[in-house]
Amino acid sequence: MSLDALVREGAADSSVIMLGGGMPATELFPRAALTDAFRAAMDDPAAAALQYDWPEGRHGLREWVAARLRGRGADVDHNAVILTAGAQQGISLACQFLLRPGSRVRVSAESYPAALELFRQREVVLAVGTAPADCVYVMDGIDNPYGSASDPDARADLIREGLPLIVDEAYAELDFEGRIPRPLLADARDRVWHVGSVSKTLSPGLRTGWLVPPPHLVGRVRRAKFTTDLQSSTMSQLLVERFLATEDYDAHLVRARSLYARRASVLSTAVRRHLPEWRFLEPAGGFALFLQTDHVSEHPTADQEWLRTATHHGVAFDPGSLFQVQPGSGTLAMRLCFSAADDEHLIEGAKRLRTAWRAYLKA
Amino acid sequence: MSLDALVREGAADSSVIMLGGGMPATELFPRAALTDAFRAAMDDPAAAALQYDWPEGRHGLREWVAARLRGRGADVDHNAVILTAGAQQGISLACQFLLRPGSRVRVSAESYPAALELFRQREVVLAVGTAPADCVYVMDGIDNPYGSASDPDARADLIREGLPLIVDEAYAELDFEGRIPRPLLADARDRVWHVGSVSKTLSPGLRTGWLVPPPHLVGRVRRAKFTTDLQSSTMSQLLVERFLATEDYDAHLVRARSLYARRASVLSTAVRRHLPEWRFLEPAGGFALFLQTDHVSEHPTADQEWLRTATHHGVAFDPGSLFQVQPGSGTLAMRLCFSAADDEHLIEGAKRLRTAWRAYLKA
Repeated sequence: MSLDALVREGAADSSVIMLGGGMPATELFPRAALTDAFRAAMDDPAAAALQYDWPEGRHGLREWVAARLRGRGADVDHNAVILTAGAQQGISLACQFLLRPGSRVRVSAESYPAALELFRQREVVLAVGTAPADCVYVMDGIDNPYGSASDPDARADLIREGLPLIVDEAYAELDFEGRIPRPLLADARDRVWHVGSVSKTLSPGLRTGWLVPPPHLVGRVRRAKFTTDLQSSTMSQLLVERFLATEDYDAHLVRARSLYARRASVLSTAVRRHLPEWRFLEPAGGFALFLQTDHVSEHPTADQEWLRTATHHGVAFDPGSLFQVQPGSGTLAMRLCFSAADDEHLIEGAKRLRTAWRAYLKA
Repeated sequence: MSLDALVREGAADSSVIMLGGGMPATELFPRAALTDAFRAAMDDPAAAALQYDWPEGRHGLREWVAARLRGRGADVDHNAVILTAGAQQGISLACQFLLRPGSRVRVSAESYPAALELFRQREVVLAVGTAPADCVYVMDGIDNPYGSASDPDARADLIREGLPLIVDEAYAELDFEGRIPRPLLADARDRVWHVGSVSKTLSPGLRTGWLVPPPHLVGRVRRAKFTTDLQSSTMSQLLVERFLATEDYDAHLVRARSLYARRASVLSTAVRRHLPEWRFLEPAGGFALFLQTDHVSEHPTADQEWLRTATHHGVAFDPGSLFQVQPGSGTLAMRLCFSAADDEHLIEGAKRLRTAWRAYLKA
């Protein structure tokens, strides 16, 4: 069975505690406010939510994005913002302009799987550490999979170095302490491709994100967005736009950070207790812990075997190889998401992992 | 002012009768049914509509697409269907697999602007008529901009010829008589990239369409969809899926065809009366008339000048050059959409075009 099939099998079985997937907490979805927004949209005689819009998306939502970036020190106008189908489409559009087969993009040794897969599909060379690069993909604020906060020195280096930057802020607003750094585009406006999203904070199912390209390329990126899918969902844009206009987004973020920080603490404690052979960095934000062990396996698909064993014992996770630039180095890793499970399931999940790990080591 | 700016100016001015844009009739949006669907989605404890889903999209909607194609004679399983952000994304994904810079794609001399622009962005050679080609882009059923029904002999040739086909059925269900041909993929399953959408029939703002690639490429296309935008809007998929499960889609199509056929007739009559110098083919379906005149202009941007004059006289349209493989051939053309205007505006629009045309000829 392929890794993909294995992951799907675990997700389909409700008796399996799912600690993979990077999904937001269902409890945080603002259903009532979105229902109000939907009603208002249906009351509009022109039913704009159901109709075509321009490729770059609705003015009001672009203005919100721009104003928020201005509030953080960046010189951004609504005309510079292109609404996208989540952060992923922002990254994908940036790639169309920055990367050719053979180009070198610098990434962290462990990074966001869909970005890594995108780069590989485009036959781009993944450069780690000090290897030469044509551009840099960086998860700023909070990274994935570690949930670490950005290092100020590394950020200063990025600004000094002068390379084009794809800056992915998908998790930035979910720093548990609400410390959101000055956006990199504030200091490198003409070579930063700024990517943001409400997928982690409001709803991923609405697929609403944004891309702020270098100013001289906005027109061309808008045309690329147009030929990709004409525009993002008007309905989703309108629901998000109205939520932001009528609700207190920052208060919503405070609630979200508090819930995720608590769940992070519950899972960290449970993992320390039940899986002492696995080490991880205490996360500063985000949805997950990234766990590594020194256990060396000769098996090239050890990762898959470990997930199979765990699923058999009623718990699933995101295999570490998905995040690794050089997967299969021999030591095992996994991402455990605390975001979408309650305390009881987090603790029970860690216990099942302990049983599974013992079974795996014996096999 | 650029053509794009001119088009936007006309659209933003409510005193201008907009006969461009290819938008569905607001009256046909199924607001009540979608409101029921939204409520049901918010009542789901898991709130699946707001959460992540798999790259290929929801099972129920893929099964509906597959069943409908099976009902038309094609051997299609839900696993072969990938939900996309409208037909445009289906075409765009197909291009990733079929075309490289320098590839030759056969298109009609006048075709769908966003497909032509996509091909040009990818540095693909547009081949018309009997010129050699590596693949064919065809709007099957009803084409754009003419609203003509597919020619059975041309379809038979396409099947015989053996080239890969991107088959765009975006307008197919809006043949005024409801004559929907056997899908081309029924007879060339392994080289047809079948593209469909509910954008014209239910709502473009939901961005819900589908791609049925050749069976041996489904897995790779699913990965390409994943790196493009992870997945299409779960919310939109769920609204459409529930609409199709609880409402009578075919009865909805009958109402839509009837409205559009009547509006086509009103606009055709008005154009024949007020713009006798412009010729057009009586449409068999779709949203628009494509009008051409023998008037030759030396001006390379005559098209733009003509739109500017018309907008000044309170009416706007889609400039013909957008649809032409070789724009600026010297004779003027325009697409007039009857889809989103009521009878009064259609007639008044034609009258304003007459005044504008006289002014244009004098200038």
